[in-house]
Parts: sequence; C-alpha cells; structure tokens
Amino acid sequence: MGDLSVVQAMRYASAGGKRLRAFLVLETARLHGIAPEQAIWPAAAVEALHAYSLVHDDLPCMDDDDLRRGLPTVHVQWDQATAVLAGDALQTLAFELLARPECSPDATVRADLVLGLARAVGAQGMVRGQALDIAAETAPEPLTLEQITELQAGKTGALIEWSAAAGPVLARADSAPLRAYAQALGLAFQIADDILDVTGDEETAGKRLQKDEKAGKATFVSLLGLDGARARAAELIEQAHVALDSYGDEAETLRQAARFVIARQS
Amino acid sequence: MGDLSVVQAMRYASAGGKRLRAFLVLETARLHGIAPEQAIWPAAAVEALHAYSLVHDDLPCMDDDDLRRGLPTVHVQWDQATAVLAGDALQTLAFELLARPECSPDATVRADLVLGLARAVGAQGMVRGQALDIAAETAPEPLTLEQITELQAGKTGALIEWSAAAGPVLARADSAPLRAYAQALGLAFQIADDILDVTGDEETAGKRLQKDEKAGKATFVSLLGLDGARARAAELIEQAHVALDSYGDEAETLRQAARFVIARQS
Repeated sequence: MGDLSVVQAMRYASAGGKRLRAFLVLETARLHGIAPEQAIWPAAAVEALHAYSLVHDDLPCMDDDDLRRGLPTVHVQWDQATAVLAGDALQTLAFELLARPECSPDATVRADLVLGLARAVGAQGMVRGQALDIAAETAPEPLTLEQITELQAGKTGALIEWSAAAGPVLARADSAPLRAYAQALGLAFQIADDILDVTGDEETAGKRLQKDEKAGKATFVSLLGLDGARARAAELIEQAHVALDSYGDEAETLRQAARFVIARQS
Repeated sequence: MGDLSVVQAMRYASAGGKRLRAFLVLETARLHGIAPEQAIWPAAAVEALHAYSLVHDDLPCMDDDDLRRGLPTVHVQWDQATAVLAGDALQTLAFELLARPECSPDATVRADLVLGLARAVGAQGMVRGQALDIAAETAPEPLTLEQITELQAGKTGALIEWSAAAGPVLARADSAPLRAYAQALGLAFQIADDILDVTGDEETAGKRLQKDEKAGKATFVSLLGLDGARARAAELIEQAHVALDSYGDEAETLRQAARFVIARQS
C-alpha cells in the first residue's frame, strides 16, 4: 500500500515555526532543575499539539489558508482528508509523548501533564477560542475588547500557559508565578499578531496577512488603534517581567523571550 | 456570544450507538473486581474517542456520509467547521477523562490507559487504518484478504482491543487473554459489518449501506463470498470464546456479546 501520506504530512506540519511553546517548556524546566533529556518530551508534545491546531485551522472550512511557515498548507500539499487525519494523529501523538515514562519517572506528573493539556486545548480551552472566532465571523456586531480577550485566552493563551507551567509541574513546584508570566505573554503575543497582520510582510511572516481586516473582524488593532495596541503589548510585557521577580537573574532568558514576542516579524 | 454549537455537536455525536466499547470496558472491569463508579471513566473516554472518529470519518472529504445512528451527521446538522472542532474536542475529552483521578487512584494506571489509547488510535493504529482505507479507494488493484485484515486491525480492531484490556489494566492484571478475545471479536465485528452492508436495511442500521459495493471496494464479502464471510465470522467467535476459558462462567456475558456481534442488524 506504499508510504502513508498521513505520516509524511505529520512530519511536514511539525517542521519550522518559532518553537515558542517548546522553548517555554525547556526554559521553565531548566529553572526548576529538570534535565533537557526529560523536558524534551513535553516540549515535543506541545509542538505536536500546536501543529495539529494549525493544520485543522488552515482547512478550507475553517480559516482556509494556503500558506503556513512559508510553505503550502497540508490540505494544499496533499488533500483535505490527509489534513484532517494528520491533525488528528498529531493531537494523539501529543498525549502519547506525555504519557511515556521518559517524560517523567513520576506517573502522577505524567497524568497531571495530560490532564492540564487536555483542559487547555479542549472545548473549554483552545477549541472554545476557535469556535468563538468562527462564530464572530457571522455575529451581527463586531466583538468587544472583553470578548476578544476571552477568545484569545482560549485560542492561544491556554496552550502558552500550559507550556510555561510545564517546568514547575515536572518539578512538582508552585506554577503560579510562571502562569502569571504566561498569561501576560500570551495576550501580548496575540496583540503582536494583530499588529503584524496589519504592518507585516507576508514573505517574512510565512503566512497570509491582512485577513482579519478583509473579513471585517474586530482585532486589538481595530479596537485600540495601532499605537494603543503597541502600548498595551508593552504594558503586558512589563507585567510578564514583574511576574518573574522571584526567579531573579535566572529568568533573564524568559524576559528576553517576552521582549522578542512583541518585536518579532513572523 | 451565545451557546457554542461545538459543545452541542459533541453531545449530539456522543448520543446513541451500541456502546460496544463502553460495554467491554465495564464488563472486563467487573471481571477484575473494579467498581463501575471507577470503570465508567474509561468507558466514557472510549465512547468519546469513538464518537470523534465517526464525526471526522463522516466528513465530505472522508467517507461523506449524511446519516449516522439514524440521524443527520454533524456536518449536515451544523457545518464542517463545527464537525472538525467537535471531533477534535471529543478526542481531547477522551484523554481528559482517563487522566482524571476518578479514573483510578493509581496514577501509573491512568498514564498506562492514556498511553495505550494513544497507541491504539494514532498514526500506528486507528488513523493508520483510516489512511489505508482512503488510499485503497484510488489503488489500482483491490486489496487482498491480508491487506484488508491489516486495515481493519487498525481501523476498528485496536480500539476494541484497548476497551477489552481496560479491565485488567485497571486492576494491573495480565491483559493477554482479553486481548486475544478482543482481536477475534474485532475482526468478526468488521466481517459482520461487511455482511450487513450487503444484506442489511438502512433504517434498522441507522446509516447508509451498500457504499463499499458502489465504490468497488474489496470487502470480506467480496473476497470470501457471503457464506464464506459468515463461516469466517463464526470461526472467530469460537476463537473469542476459547480465549475466555480461564475466566469460566464469569465471562458468560462476554460470550453472549461475541454472539451478538455477528447476529446484530445495526
């Protein structure tokens, strides 16, 4: 029956990207004394999960995107059936990686990572954000700032928070400071995405831009203006920095990451 | 933003059906002294997982079915985006239910259940079977008996095996006899499906029939003939019975279930 395109598509969809979520897992693990050989498992899991969400989000019935990370999207490169199955299997792979003994010798930690990821991405988390996003397209009124903030907390925030909490969860330590950091970072990330959608260059970004504006969707830029959005993002990065105080100089890389999130061009 | 259709669709897609997989979890748990209050969690998980696979399988880009369990499929009742998201969230829900402390007080058991389910349904299990099934539609030659058996072991067999192994896994006992039972049962189930596809009534079955024949796909019936397929299914049910020998009279309900699988009309 030849080589399976679904496996090729899984590999293709997992390549490239900024690896922000994997970085957060590895860096917060390092802060808590967890070895990279162990942290690489939840880091790989969150990137597989993120790749699944992009493949399904790009489908014609969803955002209908043909370009992702500078390459044709999976349903363009193969077909829709392959994109649905590859996304499905990438989600499964994420949970498989977390449940493997290599991820943590402590089964309670593995089960906690699975439970936390499931809550971050299911119908109360990421999928809720995606569903709100789709519902907004046909809503009679554009969304308010409060509604967009709620939408984004689900759509991108929950997975970023899970990633930053992975370090303390692996070490069975308090995850509250890193969750506060990630909440501010996640919202700043989304505001930066909205700014990039208006001011960015498609080739550098590796994806289609100005889609929200064309669709008449409310964004942080349409609601706050470009300067207002930039000021709000800077304020959130300051909050993210403050949340890291208890980690002292050790958290310098996470502080740099927060600055990168609003300065990035892709 | 109103009630979310994705949550309604998840509930809709989880209703009805034979509950064969949940039955296998509950009955094998009972055989191993696990209380129903505990076994109900993996039983609910496997039904959520199965519902996800049906919702995505019915999509226009996959099998393009409009009828399931006697009702319009999710993408007909809502739309494709809702069907993709509801399926995604049902898969997530399955892993969430397994990772919850209610599922087992022993975190090793919870992690094992997650790992086993992920391996049964990912790119080496169910999704592999679905991908082979789609590839078969455009293959130059119809599949051989060996290839169809491999395809079905992934597509339906792996999840049925996981369900029957759940009882011993919950009790940390040997799962080999129930896995042997489930492998024979799963294959008999699929042969019965192929027989039903030819001889069944759409109203009673609650789904479209004669689809394989119309698509010119090889099935157990096209390869073995109707009588040959019936004989093979009966042989497998006999094998399933033998695998239960060590459980004695206690396994009578599982033996009845095996007989039901080839006698069923839906």
